[in-house]
Amino acid sequence: MIPDIPTISANLSDPAPEFPWPNGASCAVFPAFDVDAETAWLQYDFKNVDRLVTMSFGAYEERVGIPKILDYLRAEEIKATFYIPGWVVDAHPKMCESIVKDGHEVGHHGYLHKRPDPADFAEDKEEIDKALDSLKRVLGVTPVGYRAPSGENYHELLGYLRDRGILYSSSFRDDIRPYRHKLRDGSRGPVELPVNVSFDDWLYGLSQRFSPRPMFPKEHVLSIWNGELEQTREWGGLVSMVMHPQVTGRPMRLGILRDFITRARSYGDVWIATGQEIAAHYIEQEKAAGL
Amino acid sequence: MIPDIPTISANLSDPAPEFPWPNGASCAVFPAFDVDAETAWLQYDFKNVDRLVTMSFGAYEERVGIPKILDYLRAEEIKATFYIPGWVVDAHPKMCESIVKDGHEVGHHGYLHKRPDPADFAEDKEEIDKALDSLKRVLGVTPVGYRAPSGENYHELLGYLRDRGILYSSSFRDDIRPYRHKLRDGSRGPVELPVNVSFDDWLYGLSQRFSPRPMFPKEHVLSIWNGELEQTREWGGLVSMVMHPQVTGRPMRLGILRDFITRARSYGDVWIATGQEIAAHYIEQEKAAGL
Amino acid sequence: MIPDIPTISANLSDPAPEFPWPNGASCAVFPAFDVDAETAWLQYDFKNVDRLVTMSFGAYEERVGIPKILDYLRAEEIKATFYIPGWVVDAHPKMCESIVKDGHEVGHHGYLHKRPDPADFAEDKEEIDKALDSLKRVLGVTPVGYRAPSGENYHELLGYLRDRGILYSSSFRDDIRPYRHKLRDGSRGPVELPVNVSFDDWLYGLSQRFSPRPMFPKEHVLSIWNGELEQTREWGGLVSMVMHPQVTGRPMRLGILRDFITRARSYGDVWIATGQEIAAHYIEQEKAAGL
Amino acid sequence: MIPDIPTISANLSDPAPEFPWPNGASCAVFPAFDVDAETAWLQYDFKNVDRLVTMSFGAYEERVGIPKILDYLRAEEIKATFYIPGWVVDAHPKMCESIVKDGHEVGHHGYLHKRPDPADFAEDKEEIDKALDSLKRVLGVTPVGYRAPSGENYHELLGYLRDRGILYSSSFRDDIRPYRHKLRDGSRGPVELPVNVSFDDWLYGLSQRFSPRPMFPKEHVLSIWNGELEQTREWGGLVSMVMHPQVTGRPMRLGILRDFITRARSYGDVWIATGQEIAAHYIEQEKAAGL
Repeated sequence: MIPDIPTISANLSDPAPEFPWPNGASCAVFPAFDVDAETAWLQYDFKNVDRLVTMSFGAYEERVGIPKILDYLRAEEIKATFYIPGWVVDAHPKMCESIVKDGHEVGHHGYLHKRPDPADFAEDKEEIDKALDSLKRVLGVTPVGYRAPSGENYHELLGYLRDRGILYSSSFRDDIRPYRHKLRDGSRGPVELPVNVSFDDWLYGLSQRFSPRPMFPKEHVLSIWNGELEQTREWGGLVSMVMHPQVTGRPMRLGILRDFITRARSYGDVWIATGQEIAAHYIEQEKAAGL
Repeated sequence: MIPDIPTISANLSDPAPEFPWPNGASCAVFPAFDVDAETAWLQYDFKNVDRLVTMSFGAYEERVGIPKILDYLRAEEIKATFYIPGWVVDAHPKMCESIVKDGHEVGHHGYLHKRPDPADFAEDKEEIDKALDSLKRVLGVTPVGYRAPSGENYHELLGYLRDRGILYSSSFRDDIRPYRHKLRDGSRGPVELPVNVSFDDWLYGLSQRFSPRPMFPKEHVLSIWNGELEQTREWGGLVSMVMHPQVTGRPMRLGILRDFITRARSYGDVWIATGQEIAAHYIEQEKAAGL
Repeated sequence: MIPDIPTISANLSDPAPEFPWPNGASCAVFPAFDVDAETAWLQYDFKNVDRLVTMSFGAYEERVGIPKILDYLRAEEIKATFYIPGWVVDAHPKMCESIVKDGHEVGHHGYLHKRPDPADFAEDKEEIDKALDSLKRVLGVTPVGYRAPSGENYHELLGYLRDRGILYSSSFRDDIRPYRHKLRDGSRGPVELPVNVSFDDWLYGLSQRFSPRPMFPKEHVLSIWNGELEQTREWGGLVSMVMHPQVTGRPMRLGILRDFITRARSYGDVWIATGQEIAAHYIEQEKAAGL
Repeated sequence: MIPDIPTISANLSDPAPEFPWPNGASCAVFPAFDVDAETAWLQYDFKNVDRLVTMSFGAYEERVGIPKILDYLRAEEIKATFYIPGWVVDAHPKMCESIVKDGHEVGHHGYLHKRPDPADFAEDKEEIDKALDSLKRVLGVTPVGYRAPSGENYHELLGYLRDRGILYSSSFRDDIRPYRHKLRDGSRGPVELPVNVSFDDWLYGLSQRFSPRPMFPKEHVLSIWNGELEQTREWGGLVSMVMHPQVTGRPMRLGILRDFITRARSYGDVWIATGQEIAAHYIEQEKAAGL
């Protein structure tokens, strides 16, 4: 009646190695945006495509959120990572081109923001391929990073992603340092840049009929974010953020990011970098260690 | 299996033009109330009409909320916009007349607060017409503004509203400046005065069995509202509020509005205006720009 | 398709008269407890009767909550109102006797805390009668006040309650002053001591599988409670509280009540009274006004 | 139609005796962790076993949470109690051994974290036995304490646990002092170390698709925890905590525990002890009192 102990992920991947950060940095902050636009709402019900007010939450990204975020990052000379679903690339090519033009990393985020599930491997592969095509065709981008839409993944898909050129994933919640996925067949999977669950802005700043949540002010969010940064820095870890332009691109919310980055920079030893840069550093250290 | 990219709203309407605000104002604040009264609860289950405690949440508006809000606005010499469902006009004529008598704008808010849906076009048209009749018959009002009940809308309904005399909508969440809707058939729709999602008092101040939400204190709400105002002012945008007399008409909640308006006025360059005034200003600028 | 406008409660009862409070008081605070004990959890699923940890949330009332609350009220020389379901009287006679012994008012709160519904009139009458019997038989009490379990009521039940000796109800959310119910048949119903929705401690201090809610600290609750009191006092109204011994009887939560009462007393002109006292004052004023 | 009054738990167990705490302590703080790891997510849907991001919330415990918590406890010379499901012992033997090696108490927490239910007695007994086997086989531990997974229990299971060597339970929410369970058949059950509902870190610090909750900062949690401690100390009670390494093992969250323990120690008379120690003290006092 009680199922046997399966081989679970935690038993497969080795512990995260304690590689040093570059240039003596004490820790890393990885500012990343999931540019879900309307797909955030189509995932609840595809009929939402004709429900224009619901869609307008996502449409905020092209009209306001992304331009304001790009302005801010340019002024601060920060390169960030933008995970963009293929559907968004096809529907908002100009917005996506403006991200590429500013030199930010563009990562893979599925096609229609479908949540991967072990039962849907055929469909999930189609999502991966269709999005790779959009990113290449519209933006000329071949992504090396992948963030799972709606936060889910499984062994077969990790292997498929690796085979399609994905060097790193940033979706798991199981560590505060990067590590290398080991897959069920014994092969090496992508590098993981694990996400800190507290840095998802959706938990604090957006409420809609399909996602009814309380809204929290700046002091609330900054207390959590600054507290996580302070301790992660002492532990020498990585802070991977999960922001959404339809949240953090709102007027007051952008100020939260601004204050957080100011705080991170005030330490003088926090490395602010893209997923691609952090993964490349990890792979370099891994090679140096002969792993 | 993956649906094709539809033509979505965001691709239809042009970007919001950066028209100046009148008299050198830096931004606009648009105080607006959705006078849902009992319809807020009838929408969950029409049998609630006989559930008197549930109904009493809405009945608060005629007995206390509206009188106290009108007192406040009169003392501060502020004109606001009140979106009133036709059913509320018919059920609470004296309350609605007191709003008109004070010179506030009365806008369209459906009849029974039914949420518009693309699948219900026939029914939704009936809601529009029945409410137009109530507003005219009871209050002598022909509304020029429309706020979608429960925040939903679609192309066909936007066209229908325009054809029925609606000059502006205030329902979408996709911008921080007014813009002109462009409809699927290529025609011009109403002007949009987009709503700031943080200014819905329902998110902070009301909890009931049919809508169980946490309650938040003044400091919490003001931190969000003042923060949104501060940054929206720097961006030259519009703050469209979504208040409900059964929330903001409660004793402590009215103090939140009072403090927020005091803060807005303290800048000296914030234009506090009704939807009708803001839409008229937009249309004037649009004509001047030859659009 | 759209229903006709029914005669709704708000159209029946007259506005609340602006009677003065006794002895020049500026407003009234009415400390009241719903002693739901285990019935709070039986209402979700009667099988909970054998789920002992779920039941233990309610059992806290006899073991700790009520004794601590009674100690506090005795020390402060405050008389409060306790609405006790008949089932709780039968299951916890000693606890209920200790309430009576301290001279507090005991009010009617249904038998099994069943939520009244217009569709259940026969069953609801049985609940009323069975609870009257328990209160009389076990405690020797004939209640004059009624608070609707789970906050619901309807015209027929209000009439039935009046006919069974109930002089006042404290359940509606539609006013900040007491008023007299007018029933559908034109007759006079009980007096209403309307409840302030912010004063339900369940919204801030209890989380359980069947009622998963966030927990809030003292500063959060006191900001809301003190703010409501301050403005209600300026408006000359009534603050009717809805506390539960399984919430406010918890260690830190009792301190919230203590600080709130201290604040109320510091004004020097706030009348702290039981429901029975407030209803009697209302009826006296009503007679004096010839109503 | 209305059910008869059943014999409920509250009527069976005697009131908690007011035994003194050891060495003149004013109250006791009982730091306890539910090491649910992946079982926290398998309980929603066993298919989650292949949903690796969902599983990764639990996997955080072995990779980061437990090592960091053990470091902290070692530095502070505190012994705590860890309730570990049998499945977690089998899946994470090294992690569990590190807990035992540091001298902490290991308690029973079911096998697959299945919530006990009176309808499942046969299955629940299997859970108990299978977990006893894992704890003995892998860790060499024979537990004397039991915390009910997902907070539920019933008379038959309490008797079964006692017969399997369980001396105390820490699951009920009905008191602020330890007491002895009395079972339906009149026999003595285990001692209860009742849980303070405010000390479940899950209510403040974790949000996931299967458990979507708001996140709260340190000041919020400490206000509640310190407030509960202050008053519980005045009442001479017990603070039983319910922490989870996948929550309190997160960077900022560990600081909350640290600050709380610092506060508790600053009183100079708070006894910080394991469940086993507190239960042993209770049993000793019970014997001394001839009960």
